[in-house]
Amino acid sequence: MESQEPNVTKSPLMHSNRVLVKTVLEGSDVETGFVGTTVVVGGWVKSSKEVKKEPVPPPSPSPPMAADARRAAPSGTKDVSCVEILQSQIPFFRTIIRVLGGSASSPAVRQKLESLIPKPPPPSTFFLEINDGSCVSSLKVVIDSAIVPVPAGQILPTGTCVLAQGVLEKPSAHGKQIIELKVEKILHVGTVEQDKYPLSRKRLPLDSLRDYPHIRPRTTTVASVTRIRSALDFATHTFFQNHGFLHVQVPIITTTDPEGFSEKFQVTTLLGETSKKEASIGVSDSDGVSLETVKAAIKEKSSLVEQLKRSDSNREALAAAIQDLRKSNELAQQVETREKSKPVTAVKPDLVNFNADFFGRQSYLTVSGRIHLESYACALGHVYSFGPRFQADKRVSAKHVAEMWTAEAEMAFTQLEDAMKCAEDYFKFLCRWILDNCSDDMKFISKRIDKTVADRLEYMASSSYEKISYREAVEILRKVIDKAFDTQLQWGVPLTDEHLSYLADDHYRRPVIIYDYPKAVKPFYVRLNDDRKTVAAFEMVVPQIGTVVTGSQNEERFDILNTRIKEFDLSKDQYEWYLDLRRYGTVKHSGFSLGFDLMVLLATGLTDVRDVIPFTRSHGKANN
Amino acid sequence: MESQEPNVTKSPLMHSNRVLVKTVLEGSDVETGFVGTTVVVGGWVKSSKEVKKEPVPPPSPSPPMAADARRAAPSGTKDVSCVEILQSQIPFFRTIIRVLGGSASSPAVRQKLESLIPKPPPPSTFFLEINDGSCVSSLKVVIDSAIVPVPAGQILPTGTCVLAQGVLEKPSAHGKQIIELKVEKILHVGTVEQDKYPLSRKRLPLDSLRDYPHIRPRTTTVASVTRIRSALDFATHTFFQNHGFLHVQVPIITTTDPEGFSEKFQVTTLLGETSKKEASIGVSDSDGVSLETVKAAIKEKSSLVEQLKRSDSNREALAAAIQDLRKSNELAQQVETREKSKPVTAVKPDLVNFNADFFGRQSYLTVSGRIHLESYACALGHVYSFGPRFQADKRVSAKHVAEMWTAEAEMAFTQLEDAMKCAEDYFKFLCRWILDNCSDDMKFISKRIDKTVADRLEYMASSSYEKISYREAVEILRKVIDKAFDTQLQWGVPLTDEHLSYLADDHYRRPVIIYDYPKAVKPFYVRLNDDRKTVAAFEMVVPQIGTVVTGSQNEERFDILNTRIKEFDLSKDQYEWYLDLRRYGTVKHSGFSLGFDLMVLLATGLTDVRDVIPFTRSHGKANN
Repeated sequence: MESQEPNVTKSPLMHSNRVLVKTVLEGSDVETGFVGTTVVVGGWVKSSKEVKKEPVPPPSPSPPMAADARRAAPSGTKDVSCVEILQSQIPFFRTIIRVLGGSASSPAVRQKLESLIPKPPPPSTFFLEINDGSCVSSLKVVIDSAIVPVPAGQILPTGTCVLAQGVLEKPSAHGKQIIELKVEKILHVGTVEQDKYPLSRKRLPLDSLRDYPHIRPRTTTVASVTRIRSALDFATHTFFQNHGFLHVQVPIITTTDPEGFSEKFQVTTLLGETSKKEASIGVSDSDGVSLETVKAAIKEKSSLVEQLKRSDSNREALAAAIQDLRKSNELAQQVETREKSKPVTAVKPDLVNFNADFFGRQSYLTVSGRIHLESYACALGHVYSFGPRFQADKRVSAKHVAEMWTAEAEMAFTQLEDAMKCAEDYFKFLCRWILDNCSDDMKFISKRIDKTVADRLEYMASSSYEKISYREAVEILRKVIDKAFDTQLQWGVPLTDEHLSYLADDHYRRPVIIYDYPKAVKPFYVRLNDDRKTVAAFEMVVPQIGTVVTGSQNEERFDILNTRIKEFDLSKDQYEWYLDLRRYGTVKHSGFSLGFDLMVLLATGLTDVRDVIPFTRSHGKANN
Repeated sequence: MESQEPNVTKSPLMHSNRVLVKTVLEGSDVETGFVGTTVVVGGWVKSSKEVKKEPVPPPSPSPPMAADARRAAPSGTKDVSCVEILQSQIPFFRTIIRVLGGSASSPAVRQKLESLIPKPPPPSTFFLEINDGSCVSSLKVVIDSAIVPVPAGQILPTGTCVLAQGVLEKPSAHGKQIIELKVEKILHVGTVEQDKYPLSRKRLPLDSLRDYPHIRPRTTTVASVTRIRSALDFATHTFFQNHGFLHVQVPIITTTDPEGFSEKFQVTTLLGETSKKEASIGVSDSDGVSLETVKAAIKEKSSLVEQLKRSDSNREALAAAIQDLRKSNELAQQVETREKSKPVTAVKPDLVNFNADFFGRQSYLTVSGRIHLESYACALGHVYSFGPRFQADKRVSAKHVAEMWTAEAEMAFTQLEDAMKCAEDYFKFLCRWILDNCSDDMKFISKRIDKTVADRLEYMASSSYEKISYREAVEILRKVIDKAFDTQLQWGVPLTDEHLSYLADDHYRRPVIIYDYPKAVKPFYVRLNDDRKTVAAFEMVVPQIGTVVTGSQNEERFDILNTRIKEFDLSKDQYEWYLDLRRYGTVKHSGFSLGFDLMVLLATGLTDVRDVIPFTRSHGKANN
């Protein structure tokens, strides 16, 4: 043993004396320099087993076990805050007994005294697999309950939190482990009520885990997803900052809706808050009672009436019960009327004076930051933004939820081709970044989720992408005979998921960039092409995922933009500021948005965004 | 001249053949290697001047000017999309004349033909200072109108957008310029209506600029702020990622309110949207007319009645006018009644069935992401989050608006001291980053805004910070005799801005960390200290700015947290998921939030967050 002090210098964490499991395991991979080092490791139990030892021999005058235990017992027991530590005090009791009894006192006295203290459980060795989220693998932690007394029921359950100090050793048994921690001191245990713990059952399906967004990062899959997501996040900033883009934090609250195709959330302070006090003021009979409560009462009272009718013994009681039931039925009607009188579908906006709202007008959660970003591009050149965007879409979908993160870029002095090139480069950079920086997680994903992911990323990072116009796409799709599409295809209709999937998955089998869309299917701000029928928009479609990037060159000509705003029946008043960018020193510019959550799907091989977004928000779902 | 091709390889931008002004100027600083290089530069005119040349001599049979102009004229005129290019066609006209007239035809015929084409304006040299947002400095761009014909009125106004190709040369005149662009070809001009352009007047005060959030990034100050803000943004990610933190995108829409001290925005789809169609269904007389319109009409009609009374000529006309006025007065009453009947202050929530809202319950914009972050810390160790947070606070303040960005960190297996240490390290890292990476902008800030900023950042990056308990802070403040505070100080009251300012600005004159606050002034989740009166919270107070960081060790003990939720009268139902983190493998953990916008104030020497946030949202203010 080289040092008694935790080897904190090798930890990438400064703000804790804990060493990451990743550091221990990676360090051991390269050399066995860690063997013999004392470290503090913390994490949550992924799996465990108990190996019982031979029963203890009756204690001798100076029992070697007790002496060992005394030496190894926690010196600062105040650290053990969440464990019943009575049993750890047994060696201490023994010491008192020895002191009280003295070495000269008779074995009978000693035996008598010893019978007063609780019997220790037969000693065991606990083998715990501890994971701290720093990597896929867990560290084997070995606890000898004779040396570090801790009850099996408190340390063994899956999900138990353990912070322990010990010595790193070569594994006692043959196996895949390369190093293990022999515990000398337990600093903290956070127990688990095993029967209630949602993750007690192994390998819960991902859709069941969605009910526990606060606990699912403890699963190996969601932990891997989180690390990959974080890596893609940093890759995004790195790509743009390295290419001279400035990050601009566009507003979340907005009064404009540039996309025009999506349902929006309103932001308001007009609805007030439901407080218990308000609800209790001036309540009528029907107020504050739920329909279920009343209905339950009716059921009970009906059965009482039936009972009394059958017994036929007490006419007065029956009359009273019938009267009572009648009252309940009336109450039920009242409650039902009240529920119906509530504006179930919507408060009509003409009832609401939005001048009194916080911003003095209707305001929304942003659907896209691109038009705000434009104003910074028209001053600073290359800018990007990365943040949450919102759509109040009630349809349930594996690719869309209400709150999703989007990376957006906008570049002055560029045209459609530049935006396509930049989007492709950014996308390839993300693929390469994951391969270069997440090999540990990619191995896990390949083993457990989809073994083709790494190959696909490699292919997408290095191959060239097909570029076709919308017109060409339609022509290809119209010639398809081996597949019947739900939507009849003709020039002008939007391409649906099945069309895009055919192009990327079947026809080209690689990412496809489709450009020059009919003007009616794209937002008002996209630049009108010379044919006056198409606009300079593009989409990048990726096999298995669909559209990951949408982009466009935006209209820089004042008159045309002004006409388009009218064509879309938008409030010109709302877009005066946007028109200003064309009034004063207009510039050709283009940009794009990348659906970050879809990128995470691509990198993890998962198929539903609800499994890769930390706290998913979708219709009817927001519980925390 | 080494190359006729734009020197794009030296540009840090891949996605445009434009070279940044920064690249040109920095490259020239080091060596004169750029002299003689042909480049494309784009940007907006910051200032300009025109120097008129001697009048042109009458053209000779093969005029050297015309020949030069022909060679230099744009080869691809389709690029010149926003300029009247008639004048640039003059050399072409001359060529036609020469071809038509032939060299043998008489000078009289030639003269006759020449008189048919417009006279060119007398040639000038235009000197433009062009800025593209890549750095503080502008590039001098020289245009000889005889060689590159462009009307002065189109190219000279401040704010004009210019994309031009030319050769980099040593300056023609002595000055601070080290290099200038001699234009050979103008690729794009975006004109400006000078009299309407908000930035035509130089040095507009910052508060006036707030009315033009979409245009103000073109000012040197806001451009500098944006670059510094972007640098601080990347520094944030770099710091946390380098220290093993994972970025977790916490939700913006939430059903919980962990801080409990702030007004919240509600997110809803119940209020619908004001559509023109809806408004036109079943409108009564008074619907859809604003009170102002009616009042204006009344004013007009009243003056007509007065006029008719005075003239006394037409009794019938007077009667009609009086009748008309009466109608308008009635309408005004109707409109006023309608306006009053609108729920001006709020829609009572008991009128609203939130079951029908998008999420089936009341939902809010998040005030803080820390409690969501905790659930990831309790699985993955060190996590951070960086995004917008919201407070519906109607007070106008230089330090707070409705939407602000916050960096939040949460660390498992740590305690209060660890969070204080990490916050301090992060803060120092940001200070150092700005000094190391934004020297150009810091020079500008020192010259124009506050010359002490760089020194203060240097001091804060390298000095040690004072750490005192809340109790000590109160004792120090109670002893102050040279200053009378507005708030009477005693143990238990929150420290106000004037107290904090005294401690940081006057008493210690450096950042101060205050910890162990009375439990009543901090959120329910902060860990209760052993004295049961204080909690393990801290604030980091910085001179001139105030509290930049708030942090805490959070309660890991189930029973105490449960009691605190009751004490704060919070809905236990809403916090069951949060209690789960204590039920299943609880761990000691701590974290903090840094007010990012305040950090930008610190780094730029500005004093109002409304000048450093791209699109500020505050009470009554959200126009885009």
